[in-house]
Amino acid sequence: MTDNQDIEDSKVYISYNHVHQLIQEAAPRLKNFNPDLIICVAGGGLIPARQVRTFLKEPGSPNVRIMAVVLSLYEDIGSVSTQAEKLGKQVVRTQWLDYINTDFTLLGKNILIVDEVDDTRTTLNYAVTELKKDVEEQAKAKGIDVKDAGTNFGIFVLHNKLKPKKADLPPEVYNEKNYIAARDIEDVWIAYPWESNDIVYHTKRAVEQGNDVFLP
Amino acid sequence: MTDNQDIEDSKVYISYNHVHQLIQEAAPRLKNFNPDLIICVAGGGLIPARQVRTFLKEPGSPNVRIMAVVLSLYEDIGSVSTQAEKLGKQVVRTQWLDYINTDFTLLGKNILIVDEVDDTRTTLNYAVTELKKDVEEQAKAKGIDVKDAGTNFGIFVLHNKLKPKKADLPPEVYNEKNYIAARDIEDVWIAYPWESNDIVYHTKRAVEQGNDVFLP
Repeated sequence: MTDNQDIEDSKVYISYNHVHQLIQEAAPRLKNFNPDLIICVAGGGLIPARQVRTFLKEPGSPNVRIMAVVLSLYEDIGSVSTQAEKLGKQVVRTQWLDYINTDFTLLGKNILIVDEVDDTRTTLNYAVTELKKDVEEQAKAKGIDVKDAGTNFGIFVLHNKLKPKKADLPPEVYNEKNYIAARDIEDVWIAYPWESNDIVYHTKRAVEQGNDVFLP
Repeated sequence: MTDNQDIEDSKVYISYNHVHQLIQEAAPRLKNFNPDLIICVAGGGLIPARQVRTFLKEPGSPNVRIMAVVLSLYEDIGSVSTQAEKLGKQVVRTQWLDYINTDFTLLGKNILIVDEVDDTRTTLNYAVTELKKDVEEQAKAKGIDVKDAGTNFGIFVLHNKLKPKKADLPPEVYNEKNYIAARDIEDVWIAYPWESNDIVYHTKRAVEQGNDVFLP
């Protein structure tokens, strides 16, 4: 057995329909948080965010709005190795919310941040921290105390990896109501379907591993 | 047979894996346009945009960047009926690109706009028109003629509905190279998987209709 085969065997394959049902299963917890706005963290959050919207839809009510922020983890390979090790990976902000072109505020909203996986928690920490700064600014501009702004942040991920995290989430977010992971999972290589160049093979492996549909 | 049953029977069900393979099949045309940037039109473009990125990925090269604009078609039901008929549906801009927070330009880029369906063409017309305005502004700010800006727009949709369109696309976009529809389709109700509350039933119908995997 080659090393490549070892890596391949260790991957956890997840089918599209499995992802869809993970969100269906989490729907009661998502509705309990009751989002007014979904902020998807792109790339990973693009697909789950759209699926989350489907399971939040109530007949007769409009769709919950989705907005996107684009973040990537950037390893500072230009610096000397000790510094790179110290800094680890930095979050790079490629796109942020558009407060200029639209008449839009975060104040008074339940905001659900959606990503595919909580790995090191670095990206989620960045998103929450920066969005909280925006809330503070917007509250200040309106002359109100941020505590009276009525903004709440929640998080939804498909998988939370059970591993030491490199960053924290504040207690008002990291609690049973506001932090929603469809599944806790060991620190394994999760192969999501949208990353696949061969969806037939991918789905076959997911079915073999029991990671296809599980709800009736 | 009830009317509801008639509607149900007329729907074209598309599985997730079918969508994935539509993009795989279109990959040579997508690579021929050679995007530097993917702009997904949310909500419908969120899922296809992420899949497009996978099939554009070249080993050793970074991912093509995805940004999002959020547009919705808003029927002006507040106005008198004659006016509403005249105006039809208006595009509402919920989120636009973020030129403020990031050091980002459209100049010199091949920009692929991704949505799930070209229905009336209203949304795509809006996206192209507004993005072209941004290019003009950015070129002007740099003191260069927009013709020398080197920006090209392309479009990718999963399905182009063969029906009279309510808006046009400019010839530099609506041509064989720049306008890429994975499939032309009659004016039917397309049921995309991410809209489904029951993905098991949805996939079963897609398989029955031949709208599941088709590539080996």
